Amino acid sequence: MQSLPFYPRGFRSCAKNVGIRDNTLDFTVIASDVPAAAAAMFTQSRFCGAAITVGRENVANGQLQAFVINSKNANVATGEEGLANIREVARLVAEELEIQPGDVLPSSTGVIGWQLPMDKLRNGIRGVRSELREGQLHVSAHAIMTTDTRPKMRASKIGDAVLVGMCKGVGMIEPDMATMLAYFVTDAAVPADQLKQCLHQAVNHSFNMVSVDTDTSTSDTVAIMANGMAGEVPLVDFQRALQEMAIELAQDIARDGEGATKLLEVTVEDAASFTQAKRVAKSIVNSPLLKAAIFGNDPNWGRVAMAIGKCYEYTDIQPEKVRIAFGDLVVYDGRALGQENLPQLQAYLKGSEVVIRVSLHTGSERATVWGCDLSYEYVRINGEYTT
Amino acid sequence: MQSLPFYPRGFRSCAKNVGIRDNTLDFTVIASDVPAAAAAMFTQSRFCGAAITVGRENVANGQLQAFVINSKNANVATGEEGLANIREVARLVAEELEIQPGDVLPSSTGVIGWQLPMDKLRNGIRGVRSELREGQLHVSAHAIMTTDTRPKMRASKIGDAVLVGMCKGVGMIEPDMATMLAYFVTDAAVPADQLKQCLHQAVNHSFNMVSVDTDTSTSDTVAIMANGMAGEVPLVDFQRALQEMAIELAQDIARDGEGATKLLEVTVEDAASFTQAKRVAKSIVNSPLLKAAIFGNDPNWGRVAMAIGKCYEYTDIQPEKVRIAFGDLVVYDGRALGQENLPQLQAYLKGSEVVIRVSLHTGSERATVWGCDLSYEYVRINGEYTT
Repeated sequence: MQSLPFYPRGFRSCAKNVGIRDNTLDFTVIASDVPAAAAAMFTQSRFCGAAITVGRENVANGQLQAFVINSKNANVATGEEGLANIREVARLVAEELEIQPGDVLPSSTGVIGWQLPMDKLRNGIRGVRSELREGQLHVSAHAIMTTDTRPKMRASKIGDAVLVGMCKGVGMIEPDMATMLAYFVTDAAVPADQLKQCLHQAVNHSFNMVSVDTDTSTSDTVAIMANGMAGEVPLVDFQRALQEMAIELAQDIARDGEGATKLLEVTVEDAASFTQAKRVAKSIVNSPLLKAAIFGNDPNWGRVAMAIGKCYEYTDIQPEKVRIAFGDLVVYDGRALGQENLPQLQAYLKGSEVVIRVSLHTGSERATVWGCDLSYEYVRINGEYTT
Repeated sequence: MQSLPFYPRGFRSCAKNVGIRDNTLDFTVIASDVPAAAAAMFTQSRFCGAAITVGRENVANGQLQAFVINSKNANVATGEEGLANIREVARLVAEELEIQPGDVLPSSTGVIGWQLPMDKLRNGIRGVRSELREGQLHVSAHAIMTTDTRPKMRASKIGDAVLVGMCKGVGMIEPDMATMLAYFVTDAAVPADQLKQCLHQAVNHSFNMVSVDTDTSTSDTVAIMANGMAGEVPLVDFQRALQEMAIELAQDIARDGEGATKLLEVTVEDAASFTQAKRVAKSIVNSPLLKAAIFGNDPNWGRVAMAIGKCYEYTDIQPEKVRIAFGDLVVYDGRALGQENLPQLQAYLKGSEVVIRVSLHTGSERATVWGCDLSYEYVRINGEYTT
């Protein structure tokens, strides 16, 4: 496991196996030495996990002191029993750390519809306080993984302060207002209301622009704690650092999408609105036909036209004004370009990143989204996930 | 090729290879001996094929006398040249058959973005009149296939009249107001305005309820000709026969979905509206995670809960009131049922048809949709479609 070059002051963590399904890391606690300003965004799913309900309650006052996260079990569709279980987890962690129960944000990710193995969790929580260490956040990034093939973590400096972010999630990924699981901690001093604004803006241009498979998770959570131990920093610098890091982590999710062999970036520009640009870009990045073609290096660019065409609520989109390019290669500009360009397109598709750029000529707005190709491995992973 | 038990009077057809991409059947003409009452529905794609534009114009007066269909090339995103080409095809067929050019409905299906090979089509159309035969419609059902593994065709009697329907299309399938390509011919006498009403109702409960992969085609067309040569039949009987046949053909499409190993039927009932029921049912049948799980016989029913949950615009859906069943096996009823049921669910999934039944308890409406599983074969087919 690769450690980070620097860590924010006053954050301690531990990550361990408590035996939820197997013997890999499945449980982590990340705690601030002092109460921290906090903000969070959650899935809008009607079948949201029990942890989401508790997290919403606890972050409402803009203050948190610890994240507690388990993988391997999502604690979703588990009714009153599931809700009581995750409340107990948060309470036990608070007692162990001698902090307020309302300052703990819990998260669960994994299989839907199974009750948490509470005896294992109770045993695991006991003694956590003595296991917390500084400089161990990178181990937490491992503990929150499910089908991820690698941890996703970033650190950056804003003056004296440090910002660290981590996330997981490579399937059931088309977040809307939040993503799978993403956590940020910083020792910068940022008031809770400004923290919330910064988080919303960063998420809307990063995690909300990613789709691996159009399936919105029941457990999406992105949360941040700012404990202030490094003092104030210019807000604009903080905002920029947070958004850049969120975009990098969002790209990491797409690049590590279940079964993915390529990162797919789609920019739609000259659009009538951001909403239109995003809708068309998502339609392209989510097309299973296009994703399979990109996996197979098949220069079937017509599927981009198909994906634009199915956004038929936008009657201002006129095929004769649309332009489609792969990298620098324009394949359609009001009409199909010659088939003699197909070998060049096929060669371009063999790279590990495919950039598609569409100009609608309906206005001047733009949006960029990220996704990945559709491979045999996606089918294999999801054909045998619980068995 | 299996012939049909009976054919409608006064329809002749021929199907042949004109060499569009290879040496398989790629061209067919279906003609009525007399002008027929007609109706059609088309894709709403903004990137619709050139044939759609011409078909819309020609069916507007409620009369047609011939369908001309080519496979292997969709003639989409081909600009003015593509439109001029398909107009010429329709005109040449009309000249050959000595009928009105405005009574020909053309269709094209296949690769997007390539111009039609006009010399081959001109050669193919020459002499078609002498090749038309009665009792050959089943060969046309072969000629319209692309990645279909088998023709899809049905015949039924309504009193003295006969109704025959055929369709193709197993990828780029989430029709909206029409489907890939489907054609009906009947010798019943049905006025054009009633024919249109019957077609809309039938399509809305059949082809519009199918999704193979969420990708809406640029070429969707469903059309019917009624030449009246068997005289009048009770309209209610005709409507019933048409809708039943359309549902059977729609199921055929899902069962033969690209790479499909199983037919998936999802019924959502006790819903607040038909729209809500259809939206939730489509969310379930389109979930790539659920589709992959069903391919792999993985009893991961939680993905049905996820797919319901992501319809979060419906705040009246309450997880504690939802019921989810696979066949007769209830897996969730306000809370997850025991994991001891998973082996039974796994055994059920091994069948060739999987029926999912969801009760929302938000009202009394219902909708049924059809789809298929997501297999390695879907990825293979679409990773090498043009290469």
